[in-house]
Amino acid sequence: MELLTTNNVWMMICTALVFFMHLGFAFLEIGLTRQKNTINILFKNIFIISVGLLLYCLVGFNLMYPGEFNGFLGFAGFGLDAPLTDSGTLDLAYNEGYTYWTDFLFQGMFAATAATIVSGAVAERMKIGPFMVFTLIYVGFIYPIAGSWKWGGGFLQTLETPFYDFAGSTLVHSVGGWAALVAVCLLGARIGKFKNGKLYAIPGHNIPLATAGVIILWLGWFGFNGGSVLSADPELTSLTLVTTCLAAASGGVVAALVSAIKYKNLDLTMFLNGILGGLVGITAGADQMSPTDAIIIGAIAGAIIVFAVSLIDRLKLDDPVGAIAVHLVCGIWGTLAVGLFGKLAGGAQVLSQLIGVVSYAAISFISAFIILSILKKTVGIRVSEREELEGLDAHEHGMDAYPDFRLNEQ
Amino acid sequence: MELLTTNNVWMMICTALVFFMHLGFAFLEIGLTRQKNTINILFKNIFIISVGLLLYCLVGFNLMYPGEFNGFLGFAGFGLDAPLTDSGTLDLAYNEGYTYWTDFLFQGMFAATAATIVSGAVAERMKIGPFMVFTLIYVGFIYPIAGSWKWGGGFLQTLETPFYDFAGSTLVHSVGGWAALVAVCLLGARIGKFKNGKLYAIPGHNIPLATAGVIILWLGWFGFNGGSVLSADPELTSLTLVTTCLAAASGGVVAALVSAIKYKNLDLTMFLNGILGGLVGITAGADQMSPTDAIIIGAIAGAIIVFAVSLIDRLKLDDPVGAIAVHLVCGIWGTLAVGLFGKLAGGAQVLSQLIGVVSYAAISFISAFIILSILKKTVGIRVSEREELEGLDAHEHGMDAYPDFRLNEQ
Amino acid sequence: MELLTTNNVWMMICTALVFFMHLGFAFLEIGLTRQKNTINILFKNIFIISVGLLLYCLVGFNLMYPGEFNGFLGFAGFGLDAPLTDSGTLDLAYNEGYTYWTDFLFQGMFAATAATIVSGAVAERMKIGPFMVFTLIYVGFIYPIAGSWKWGGGFLQTLETPFYDFAGSTLVHSVGGWAALVAVCLLGARIGKFKNGKLYAIPGHNIPLATAGVIILWLGWFGFNGGSVLSADPELTSLTLVTTCLAAASGGVVAALVSAIKYKNLDLTMFLNGILGGLVGITAGADQMSPTDAIIIGAIAGAIIVFAVSLIDRLKLDDPVGAIAVHLVCGIWGTLAVGLFGKLAGGAQVLSQLIGVVSYAAISFISAFIILSILKKTVGIRVSEREELEGLDAHEHGMDAYPDFRLNEQ
Repeated sequence: MELLTTNNVWMMICTALVFFMHLGFAFLEIGLTRQKNTINILFKNIFIISVGLLLYCLVGFNLMYPGEFNGFLGFAGFGLDAPLTDSGTLDLAYNEGYTYWTDFLFQGMFAATAATIVSGAVAERMKIGPFMVFTLIYVGFIYPIAGSWKWGGGFLQTLETPFYDFAGSTLVHSVGGWAALVAVCLLGARIGKFKNGKLYAIPGHNIPLATAGVIILWLGWFGFNGGSVLSADPELTSLTLVTTCLAAASGGVVAALVSAIKYKNLDLTMFLNGILGGLVGITAGADQMSPTDAIIIGAIAGAIIVFAVSLIDRLKLDDPVGAIAVHLVCGIWGTLAVGLFGKLAGGAQVLSQLIGVVSYAAISFISAFIILSILKKTVGIRVSEREELEGLDAHEHGMDAYPDFRLNEQ
Repeated sequence: MELLTTNNVWMMICTALVFFMHLGFAFLEIGLTRQKNTINILFKNIFIISVGLLLYCLVGFNLMYPGEFNGFLGFAGFGLDAPLTDSGTLDLAYNEGYTYWTDFLFQGMFAATAATIVSGAVAERMKIGPFMVFTLIYVGFIYPIAGSWKWGGGFLQTLETPFYDFAGSTLVHSVGGWAALVAVCLLGARIGKFKNGKLYAIPGHNIPLATAGVIILWLGWFGFNGGSVLSADPELTSLTLVTTCLAAASGGVVAALVSAIKYKNLDLTMFLNGILGGLVGITAGADQMSPTDAIIIGAIAGAIIVFAVSLIDRLKLDDPVGAIAVHLVCGIWGTLAVGLFGKLAGGAQVLSQLIGVVSYAAISFISAFIILSILKKTVGIRVSEREELEGLDAHEHGMDAYPDFRLNEQ
Repeated sequence: MELLTTNNVWMMICTALVFFMHLGFAFLEIGLTRQKNTINILFKNIFIISVGLLLYCLVGFNLMYPGEFNGFLGFAGFGLDAPLTDSGTLDLAYNEGYTYWTDFLFQGMFAATAATIVSGAVAERMKIGPFMVFTLIYVGFIYPIAGSWKWGGGFLQTLETPFYDFAGSTLVHSVGGWAALVAVCLLGARIGKFKNGKLYAIPGHNIPLATAGVIILWLGWFGFNGGSVLSADPELTSLTLVTTCLAAASGGVVAALVSAIKYKNLDLTMFLNGILGGLVGITAGADQMSPTDAIIIGAIAGAIIVFAVSLIDRLKLDDPVGAIAVHLVCGIWGTLAVGLFGKLAGGAQVLSQLIGVVSYAAISFISAFIILSILKKTVGIRVSEREELEGLDAHEHGMDAYPDFRLNEQ
């Protein structure tokens, strides 16, 4: 009982920290985009966390953890169904690491993240209505079904050498990242981003908030990874925090360094994305790595970020916040790294990791493509040229983010 | 001892989270008002938390928890008086859920909140001096005396069917909300808000910070409600976090939905106030509700917000941040909901809840009216027209919030 | 095991809170300086925390806690070396308060703070390259060696009456503050700060973020001081939080009051710096003081701030954020206060405190002077006049912090 209480306290704190990540995502997204779309981005983020929690309560939790099932798709019924003792109180034997309620809430906070990743990639040009519809389906159904394959005990968990994804490099970040890639392809670039085959940077309007967003996300990752131990086990939780922080640090430093060499510039945005890349990279194996492993994994993620951002630009894909590089590319890297570094390293593990990566690529890419294509063909997913030029805030929300300030023409 | 340590850790974390709510309030208030009054609002918020803690140490704690008393007014003496063992160390038998020090600090963080609610309602036109005097009296004396009626074991606690207010829908939010209502009536509307019987919206100047404020407040509510369990009891704390988050989510979604239907607009501010309304609404019974109850209570709070904001406008009351709708109206709703939903539902409970609502209405309304009327008749409570037009920052503080930026004429 | 788990949870949370202080420092610094140097300050802060952690992993931790050593300089080897049991798992007998990993990470979060203090003092005119070199040496070597003298069991710990510095008024804040003083002297004032012997205030560009920074720092101090108990001991942790918060509150209120009397102005910045002064002041003895002691120590710190800021101005030292007054002067005050108030008060303790203050003054002042003088003589430490006038953001980073906003000429 003492131990359950302590474990549960830790898990509740981690839940709060993961919740707080939604402010991090919101700040990062608005900071790296233009002021005229700020309200729209904030609305989307608030919408995602609110609707995400409600949907996870209604269907998601029981899609993701259906109990015994065929390994691909199961459903334990609508709503929450807390296990009770004979005397009607909550059955604390549910798990030694947390109560039923904590379990739901911690996992619910994760669920919204996948859609948030997409929000950044489609910023400044996607219609809000179709985005909300996409969020409903992706957070409510695709994310939990995909999650059940591994965390719910599905087929990737029952491989001979089980696929391993500690806290979601693939299950959360790549699932969001693939959808971001699909959305960016279907939407096209923002007006003015590519002209005559040349790239024009569209600078973010509030870099202090973008930086704050990254620090808040790093803080939130204490809960994201630390809570994925699913108890307060002193060794595992503290090791996880160490590997998480070291990977973040080395990711940022290496991204800044590579960027400084490549572009002769001390680029704050690259530093920030390097930190995020390191965090995403360590997430799949944060409990399996030594500090040295973590530093290497983060460093490689940091280098990857610089080249991935450059590659995505060259492919004429317009991802305003670098979501694809951070969440998809580093998510894949982190997942494969579990087979290359740390306690699980080995050929069979690499293979299982590849199977996992491909499986999640399939469900995420295909489902995002179907949902977004249908939306595109029916109601359309892109705002009008006039709305894009004048900003989504005025057209979709009738509000200004900063009405007291004089703004530059954009 | 192990359990006390764990309980106390949880309570200290909740204390920190409630403290952090003061940044949430500050961001929300400045975000929803004009830049020319930003310094003034920040000063008030910093003042409230600082003076609030000192006063709660000097008199508040012992007014609110006087031990055995007549049920209406008691006082256990000035300053803190920690219970000691024979050997001079702190007596840990004080409570199994927390130490004496934690008890003081957790309750002290609550105390300042009531005045903060008023701060938002009187923003942009109240003189800082009288506001500080009001805060001293209201936080130092009225709030703790009113609190003693229930949480201190007073007459509302000793009703046959005790009045129930888990974490302060009434004791904190309505107590602040009634004073906000009084202050708004006595102050009058800001210049330009109502002209020729018509309403002119005065848009807030920094919506990203307002949004951040709401997310920080939601985070802080993990501690506000979670800590009100007064221990780390795994079942109650985790249930409380679930009901809190679900009510917030449904409050926001329903407010946005109702507002979209009523005004054909995706209104971010309404979404945000809906979240806060849901949070205030669940606060009185967060430990007594099922997830479904919580969603319904939050949803009704969300709908209430839209109509309450509209009603307050029609009454020509100028509440810049919506404090009355959020804290007073939803505070009353949440308090009554304890009699209508969840484990305590029943006629006798509804009656007790009504007695509680009326009792707190009486003390809050009357005391705020007396204090503010005396201030109005003597030193005056409203700034001069010139000061209001030019902004309180320049006149009361001699500072600009954003001196490097070009601003619009206001 | 239960108790270790609880202790370790508390220490991990405190680690997260100390990490979060880096956002507080960043917000405070950018808020109190001009927008044209915002990117530069953010870059420095992100750099400090990232490189600080990596260096503390590589050399710092083992310089600061070398085990048995000569009391002045010891080194336990490169990298981390976790103690293992025979079965290869982490040896949890390492400490009853935390695991080896938690120990490293908590101390690592502290390490970066010293350089952050310097960052604020040199803002708006120091070259980024030399600042990064200084940070590497100061955080990687000077801070941990100095720290070993007391926290590592060195000669200040083995005095007959041991020097006492609970959480780092001297070991962290003065160590940063002395370097800040040296740097400010060697750099000179910003262009326009002093003209014809007269002082011209250079107002900060974003006071909401500066205020948020202070609230975040106060929150972080829950972990900074609360975690310095090095366990979750209910009495000591909760007393520490109470003294910390009361000192912050009285520091702020007294600074505002003294400033109001002296300058006839309700100065928000002084209120904020008073809070920080109170926090720094209580840090050396937060676990040794009664609430009354804490209020007095904070109050004196608050008064000190007003006069120290004024004195530093009169000395023609240009410290944009008040780092010297807050961290150095109040750090010294807090360290001496341990001999004057609370459980350790007494003549012998005062003497030991003085020895400590002088020892840290010596190592910090001398090492900072040597490092910065060499940098000044070789590569130079100050940006060109043109770069200073146009802003470091454009020249060192090629980025604007707020590209969508119209700015005033500066």
